[in-house]
Amino acid sequence: MQDERVAALVFDVFGTVVDWRSGVVEAARSLAPGDADFGAFADDWRREGYLAPIGEVVSGRRPFEPVESLLAEPLDRLLGRHLIELGPSGRRVLLGAWARLDPWPDVADGLDRLRRRYTIAPLSNASFAQLTGMARRAGLGWDCIISTELFGTYKPDAAAYLGAARLLGLDPGEVMLVAAHPADLLGAAAAGLATAYVPRPDEWGPGTRTGEPPPADTDLVAADFVALADALGA
Amino acid sequence: MQDERVAALVFDVFGTVVDWRSGVVEAARSLAPGDADFGAFADDWRREGYLAPIGEVVSGRRPFEPVESLLAEPLDRLLGRHLIELGPSGRRVLLGAWARLDPWPDVADGLDRLRRRYTIAPLSNASFAQLTGMARRAGLGWDCIISTELFGTYKPDAAAYLGAARLLGLDPGEVMLVAAHPADLLGAAAAGLATAYVPRPDEWGPGTRTGEPPPADTDLVAADFVALADALGA
Repeated sequence: MQDERVAALVFDVFGTVVDWRSGVVEAARSLAPGDADFGAFADDWRREGYLAPIGEVVSGRRPFEPVESLLAEPLDRLLGRHLIELGPSGRRVLLGAWARLDPWPDVADGLDRLRRRYTIAPLSNASFAQLTGMARRAGLGWDCIISTELFGTYKPDAAAYLGAARLLGLDPGEVMLVAAHPADLLGAAAAGLATAYVPRPDEWGPGTRTGEPPPADTDLVAADFVALADALGA
Repeated sequence: MQDERVAALVFDVFGTVVDWRSGVVEAARSLAPGDADFGAFADDWRREGYLAPIGEVVSGRRPFEPVESLLAEPLDRLLGRHLIELGPSGRRVLLGAWARLDPWPDVADGLDRLRRRYTIAPLSNASFAQLTGMARRAGLGWDCIISTELFGTYKPDAAAYLGAARLLGLDPGEVMLVAAHPADLLGAAAAGLATAYVPRPDEWGPGTRTGEPPPADTDLVAADFVALADALGA
């Protein structure tokens, strides 16, 4: 597949560009004494402080709140559940870990190539400040930062995909979403964007292979960002 | 002056970072036959398609419209006034010239240095798409793109400066505006930002020296972006 109309690639970030789990696990381990199951803590945090409340916002069951607030809300409860002892300043640093995440190993090379041909940007439920911090720290050469915060909603709300295309001055069909998550790809396709699936089988930990297969009508499937550059002739 | 609180620098773009006049003059000259006064045309366009309508939006006399619409509105009239003949496709290309402007000679080196120490971003009345296109073309290494379009207003509305700080996750006093225009610096200071003035005496043409002096309480004055990096220890 090579859609000549595509002029910009927008990327899901948590899971697709960066390894959120390793970053959160390492931050928690470095901040808290003891031998808690930091992996289980990170997984619970992702589910209860991010996936669940975002689902509630998108379905209209709760108003939009910044992602930093969503992540902060269950933190005391989760630390207690996993017997992780952390004072107020440690909790603030731990919250900041979501802006200090490392990209998967193929990301830097892949983006460098893709950028020669396409405008590239994140399109993420992470906040504008988190995305800007992550890009600075990891040296990701985005052309601009697009957070769903700019539209007062979260993916997979159609307004997020349409808003990204509008900001870029493009029609939805001129923008391709790259993501490891079927729900994100379905949302993008429903809004008229092109779609590319990149599997991240280790997102929930090495060897867990918890990734779901892509939707049947995904335009492009690539093993990683370098393979994506190959497939797009970049 | 060295305010240790400042973590991010945001830059006015048209006039401060890029030489809009030369870019528009050259685009018009390359598109239209004849020997019209393309400089006078560019100056009128800046005044009647940009400064005047933006002033009306900020003062509440007209609703917000994208800057591309403001620029397009008087174009037929201005081409007629200056006896410049241009068909519909030429007019579209000419409008696009506002996203294909070259930076002043000191900008690339200055930004490269400033970026090591500070988060850097445009904070401009140009559209998000114009700023993204300009940065790609000129290789400006912004950490993110901030257009006042994101706030549905234009500078010097306080909401623009406060919105930029909020998106960056910073207090207004942790952000410094860099601009060649007193009204912009006054607006930023009123919103609580730090301010730096960089004169651009050739903005309205070589030798015109039409720049106004900076407001008295401007935090920092630097001859260009390299001198700004010197002054900020970057």
